[in-house]
Amino acid sequence: MFVKLQEEKVFKDPVHHSIYVQDVTIWNLINTPEFQRLRRIRQLGTTYLTFHGAEHSRLSHSLGVYEITRKIISQFERSGYTDWPQEERLLSLCASLLHDVGHGPFSHSLEQIFHTDHEEWTCEVILGDTEINRVLREVSDDFPERVASVIRKTYDKPIVVSLVSSQLDADRMDYLLRDAYFTGVNYGTFDLDRILRVLRPYEDKIVVKESGMHAVEDYLVSRYQMYWQVYFHPVTRSSEIVLRQIFRRAKELHKEGFRFAFLLAPIKHLLEGSLQLGDYLRLDESLVQTTFSEWANERDTLLSSLCRRFLNRQLYKYALLEEQDEAWLADARQEWLLLGLNPDYHLEVDNPFDSPYDIYKPEQKPAGREKPPILLLNEREQLTEISVKSDIIRSIAGIQHGKYCVYYPKDELLPYIDRLSKNTREKLSL
Amino acid sequence: MFVKLQEEKVFKDPVHHSIYVQDVTIWNLINTPEFQRLRRIRQLGTTYLTFHGAEHSRLSHSLGVYEITRKIISQFERSGYTDWPQEERLLSLCASLLHDVGHGPFSHSLEQIFHTDHEEWTCEVILGDTEINRVLREVSDDFPERVASVIRKTYDKPIVVSLVSSQLDADRMDYLLRDAYFTGVNYGTFDLDRILRVLRPYEDKIVVKESGMHAVEDYLVSRYQMYWQVYFHPVTRSSEIVLRQIFRRAKELHKEGFRFAFLLAPIKHLLEGSLQLGDYLRLDESLVQTTFSEWANERDTLLSSLCRRFLNRQLYKYALLEEQDEAWLADARQEWLLLGLNPDYHLEVDNPFDSPYDIYKPEQKPAGREKPPILLLNEREQLTEISVKSDIIRSIAGIQHGKYCVYYPKDELLPYIDRLSKNTREKLSL
Amino acid sequence: MFVKLQEEKVFKDPVHHSIYVQDVTIWNLINTPEFQRLRRIRQLGTTYLTFHGAEHSRLSHSLGVYEITRKIISQFERSGYTDWPQEERLLSLCASLLHDVGHGPFSHSLEQIFHTDHEEWTCEVILGDTEINRVLREVSDDFPERVASVIRKTYDKPIVVSLVSSQLDADRMDYLLRDAYFTGVNYGTFDLDRILRVLRPYEDKIVVKESGMHAVEDYLVSRYQMYWQVYFHPVTRSSEIVLRQIFRRAKELHKEGFRFAFLLAPIKHLLEGSLQLGDYLRLDESLVQTTFSEWANERDTLLSSLCRRFLNRQLYKYALLEEQDEAWLADARQEWLLLGLNPDYHLEVDNPFDSPYDIYKPEQKPAGREKPPILLLNEREQLTEISVKSDIIRSIAGIQHGKYCVYYPKDELLPYIDRLSKNTREKLSL
Amino acid sequence: MFVKLQEEKVFKDPVHHSIYVQDVTIWNLINTPEFQRLRRIRQLGTTYLTFHGAEHSRLSHSLGVYEITRKIISQFERSGYTDWPQEERLLSLCASLLHDVGHGPFSHSLEQIFHTDHEEWTCEVILGDTEINRVLREVSDDFPERVASVIRKTYDKPIVVSLVSSQLDADRMDYLLRDAYFTGVNYGTFDLDRILRVLRPYEDKIVVKESGMHAVEDYLVSRYQMYWQVYFHPVTRSSEIVLRQIFRRAKELHKEGFRFAFLLAPIKHLLEGSLQLGDYLRLDESLVQTTFSEWANERDTLLSSLCRRFLNRQLYKYALLEEQDEAWLADARQEWLLLGLNPDYHLEVDNPFDSPYDIYKPEQKPAGREKPPILLLNEREQLTEISVKSDIIRSIAGIQHGKYCVYYPKDELLPYIDRLSKNTREKLSL
Repeated sequence: MFVKLQEEKVFKDPVHHSIYVQDVTIWNLINTPEFQRLRRIRQLGTTYLTFHGAEHSRLSHSLGVYEITRKIISQFERSGYTDWPQEERLLSLCASLLHDVGHGPFSHSLEQIFHTDHEEWTCEVILGDTEINRVLREVSDDFPERVASVIRKTYDKPIVVSLVSSQLDADRMDYLLRDAYFTGVNYGTFDLDRILRVLRPYEDKIVVKESGMHAVEDYLVSRYQMYWQVYFHPVTRSSEIVLRQIFRRAKELHKEGFRFAFLLAPIKHLLEGSLQLGDYLRLDESLVQTTFSEWANERDTLLSSLCRRFLNRQLYKYALLEEQDEAWLADARQEWLLLGLNPDYHLEVDNPFDSPYDIYKPEQKPAGREKPPILLLNEREQLTEISVKSDIIRSIAGIQHGKYCVYYPKDELLPYIDRLSKNTREKLSL
Repeated sequence: MFVKLQEEKVFKDPVHHSIYVQDVTIWNLINTPEFQRLRRIRQLGTTYLTFHGAEHSRLSHSLGVYEITRKIISQFERSGYTDWPQEERLLSLCASLLHDVGHGPFSHSLEQIFHTDHEEWTCEVILGDTEINRVLREVSDDFPERVASVIRKTYDKPIVVSLVSSQLDADRMDYLLRDAYFTGVNYGTFDLDRILRVLRPYEDKIVVKESGMHAVEDYLVSRYQMYWQVYFHPVTRSSEIVLRQIFRRAKELHKEGFRFAFLLAPIKHLLEGSLQLGDYLRLDESLVQTTFSEWANERDTLLSSLCRRFLNRQLYKYALLEEQDEAWLADARQEWLLLGLNPDYHLEVDNPFDSPYDIYKPEQKPAGREKPPILLLNEREQLTEISVKSDIIRSIAGIQHGKYCVYYPKDELLPYIDRLSKNTREKLSL
Repeated sequence: MFVKLQEEKVFKDPVHHSIYVQDVTIWNLINTPEFQRLRRIRQLGTTYLTFHGAEHSRLSHSLGVYEITRKIISQFERSGYTDWPQEERLLSLCASLLHDVGHGPFSHSLEQIFHTDHEEWTCEVILGDTEINRVLREVSDDFPERVASVIRKTYDKPIVVSLVSSQLDADRMDYLLRDAYFTGVNYGTFDLDRILRVLRPYEDKIVVKESGMHAVEDYLVSRYQMYWQVYFHPVTRSSEIVLRQIFRRAKELHKEGFRFAFLLAPIKHLLEGSLQLGDYLRLDESLVQTTFSEWANERDTLLSSLCRRFLNRQLYKYALLEEQDEAWLADARQEWLLLGLNPDYHLEVDNPFDSPYDIYKPEQKPAGREKPPILLLNEREQLTEISVKSDIIRSIAGIQHGKYCVYYPKDELLPYIDRLSKNTREKLSL
Repeated sequence: MFVKLQEEKVFKDPVHHSIYVQDVTIWNLINTPEFQRLRRIRQLGTTYLTFHGAEHSRLSHSLGVYEITRKIISQFERSGYTDWPQEERLLSLCASLLHDVGHGPFSHSLEQIFHTDHEEWTCEVILGDTEINRVLREVSDDFPERVASVIRKTYDKPIVVSLVSSQLDADRMDYLLRDAYFTGVNYGTFDLDRILRVLRPYEDKIVVKESGMHAVEDYLVSRYQMYWQVYFHPVTRSSEIVLRQIFRRAKELHKEGFRFAFLLAPIKHLLEGSLQLGDYLRLDESLVQTTFSEWANERDTLLSSLCRRFLNRQLYKYALLEEQDEAWLADARQEWLLLGLNPDYHLEVDNPFDSPYDIYKPEQKPAGREKPPILLLNEREQLTEISVKSDIIRSIAGIQHGKYCVYYPKDELLPYIDRLSKNTREKLSL
């Protein structure tokens, strides 16, 4: 059941100018409580503590991914490319709109502590007892399952999966542009129109016309720059460390039978690892912040001081290390203990990494996690992996490591500064 | 005690590109818990439900107002204008940074229900037992009082007041640009650099060089456009109506002795009208949203359904009226009652208004509320009120009314549609 | 004969990002010598002497007008509006591309001196022995005549005429955006996408959906601002005065039988009023500038000094008058004569005017010159002239006058400054 | 004699928003005929034939270079860096404003044919009998010579030279931004403000704070992208080939004693290699275009057809070669001869190259041509050449080659297409 809206709906969007909705199903999905909940989850987690403009929500990003997918498909249809399966339009749009619907608050940080997986939650939201499921079932009984299989990357038409999830997908294109816009960092911009113009469906893949190589270079360099300027930023890392420590401490306390003065059910079940879909959908960043605000007065001083740090942005300071220095770290932990500081919390080492572009080496990847490489299509219909042709892409492909930093509460250390070893003072530039 | 930072601090800002902090006092103020709390209060209240990008916080706006003030003063100093009192620099910067620090969650809506006043709260935060007060007192004992008097517009140098609060002040200039940026509406942009270049301190006022008249026209037309496109938008009005109704209902219930399953102290004291500074500073939009999320399950079905409407963005629909039609409204209230709807909640009329520019008529204004007019300074040092010279400003001066609309829960009315009078169906285009 | 190109051609354009050519006829028209000649004629005449970025050519503007027309038609087709005559697409595109093809160098200035008319020349280019005519005739024998009748506004489907020539036509929309972009004045920008979305073909007109009124306000205010900031700028006016004086002097000299050391045929025939199409097409701004460069060494010192002024941007200075002051001007002319200056050249009064928006009053206009008003279409299909509804448009409708200025060669006057009357010195602020 | 203007002058500039002039000397230099002449010389030569927006003049670029230099110096002064020689401010500003004043029309193309050197002409304009020389001498007698020595890179304070001429100089920064703006290619943009903030005077160099490495990466990648998208564009290369052929042919004809119907003195002396400063200053792109327009009717059909090609943009087509293929080229020349085409003109191979960034290897460079490398300064005051630290810069350093193409007049070849060898038809894809 595919029904067009009588009149196109338009959302004003700062990144894409306008977002156009033409299908009843898309309109109804946007109006479900589960989708609206994404307004209460920020796209960039704690990054707003570094870049104050970065308050944008996952809802705005999800609309953006939908819009880019819509544009790509509409260009494929207009050009009459026969390798594009036209009957997959609505499925692709739904999957792109919903691909992040299972994100929880500060997902990337919390997933490390609680071992949840937003992709699984996304499938639960799509398949479970939700408004989203009801809207999807109006299309056909197996439609929710088909949407979920696109999310899981198991759908039997890989070209649909690659629209939503590849190294040049609508997801990445939107978040780079959006994160750059809201942080105010102008390294993240690239020429979206140009990239859209050089995409081609080819057999079961989406590939790039060879003459578009420089446009893709520009996009990957933007991505590389965003890692360095935004995603690896030490202040953001510091806020994530504090956030994770709050939940680590709360989990320990709860395990020990600590009686929290304030503990709403979704948080309780999160600490216990017994979250069900209903609770999960009540978990949002408002609830986390309200909980921290209440916990700022809990009796456990470690927990309460961490919460105050997070709310008041009194984060850990950082010092750059040349490399992981186990010997010094072991010594420093001893020093911390002697000063009455807690080395499990007050001394944390971090070295973020990610890859702006992966040269696909099938043997190195666990099944289901690989992202296929970007392929160039030349005029003789030959495909070449892009880093073979581009020096600049080869130079940034593979893992990029952020700075190796040690994080610690400088304010708590300062009173004891002359009791610190010379080595530690030098490492921390104190 | 005026101390410069050893190294200038820079915030990345999407509107002003960079925000520069040069003074220890400003840096310390930004790092207080009371200022950081502004991250949890949106600049535009419920507007994010209409324009999904409008998630920007009052913290980002406050930094922006500070930056514009800093630029104006720095231009006055560079040009050596003798009418600018150079010793008032730090005071002006502090007042501009802190002018909104007393805002609560969804201020404009809540102030109507609870008769609080964010300006009074701002002064309490500045003068009360707060970190902000401690930072300000490091400058001098009377410094907090001086900052508060600028906020209250009673400071004895009106030129300082007019930097922060006039019809062409740093506050308005920042919010127009910022609201336009984050909503994505490009009507709100004007040439800030050009305006800054034509401002002059003149006696105890800030005036505009006559050759800059067209730049001010552009700014006022932007303001007018923002009223129509953003501030008066019926969807935003609808969300404000639902928000106010939630608090109106909660206040009624609390008065009647209703036992809320969830009621944290700040909200309880808000309902009772007994808020103290400590509670007030815990009131933020996270708390309001968490409360709504819990209230969505309260036993009172009116309250719970209003909360669900707000969280899930299932707002009231609106119909345009030609003018307030008391006769029909009285009839409609009767119809609502007969259908089992509550006309006190399910039928609300709204007609927003404001003034892009006020031609100052002293006799018409209560003391302390007037904003002095914009004056042009010509080469013979004569001052003229700007609307005398500009047709375009004259045409938009004075009160602008948004659309006259009636708001109602269309979904609840639809089952009874054939029991509605013909007149009502016509008014609501049902 | 309508033929689509095998592959769409794309021009990179700073204003519209990309310009798309899909028809063989359009592609062939662009590649004619007559169209390429527009590269050598600036869109804004002498304005580059005030705003150094304003070097953009009429070719770039013509492509822009074509692109906006293409977008409007494509939206009309996509929406399936039945009032739009789909068979007129190619005609509309050709007329919009060619509407300025008869412009000569510095047209607006030269037309005043030589009483030529670029619209007539446009029709000659379309109908005469030109490549453009040959390309058009490939469509059909009467196609050139049909294109010319759109230019002349006599085509029997007024809706086609109004696309290219009305108060909200593709011509005005492109030049406002383009002139703002290249001068760097950001008052001229408005939301083109929004305007395009609210246009509707209605009977034999193009009208505006009532909800789009504020978008049109914004466009007309931009137009008003561009008059004040750019089109009426006194430095531009001064350069036009010098330019006109050069041709006025050359015409006088030629009439008197002066033997120019340098006088190519097109300029000679221009001075004589005997230009034929072949000569006209060789007249471009390169030729005019080269001629001035040679005339800078002619024996007539008035002519040579005017040419040096123009090339070296040593323009006349201006003084603002309150109003035309005939008595003083008569006196000043006497003073000039006594000082050996030439009042016919060295004293010129100017008061530019134009209308950002004309409220159409049929009885006041000569046939063929009126531009129909902008009409709003409401949901009951009623039309209202826009200034009835919009205060702001009413305030800027009608004639706008620039500043009343007197222009004179200050450098030539300075040696005699103490011989000037007190009155004159005051008028000129000397 | 350093004199400040009474009131700062402001030029509106699309790239830098505003350009501020504060010194009488700078103001007077801008108003000389020699500087104003740069309005008649395009910054990007024939590129406007590929990107129609690229009409911007060398005057606008020169003002931009001046403005960036002014901003750098003003930041050095504000920060009180002691390694910056404050007394060199005016000299640096003059050199940056004048660094391109010796450019002739379509310089890069003509210099290949006539072996002139714009840098030498710049020094002649500064030192010869010109208004510019007179203005400079008002500062001091040796000031013109000092300005010239900065241009020649022999001034005894290398830090001044490096402002105007290095791999990260004001010249490159302005032209990348400006060329990107006017072509409409948005690959060329980078964050100028950020770069300016990380520059430091250090001993006799300008270096980059290590934390600014990514900003420099972004700038160099922009530069790399501009080479590929704009500077190496085959259509631009084709127009340059036609332009050079015109002058090559004219030079041959003149040598053979051909009597041109139109030949003004500056062109005549150019052909003869006997240009003097006075003639050179009359050589501008208007004169070149007017000359081509007249030559389009000369008796020599090769010359006249080349001129028509250039004016009407009927350029040579190109075909991509894998590499220089001498054997085929020799054969093709024979084919051309048999068909009556002129292989010296109608078959030209081109392979542009340049270097976005040079790793300085002193032994490899002729004296006076090297540009020193970009150095990073870390917190321990150690300097490192940037490509040592940056993979991405290393990947684009060194020579970049554009595409290997053969250019030929397709229209003249088409009639003989079936007489061409199979090999040739394949090479040219005919």
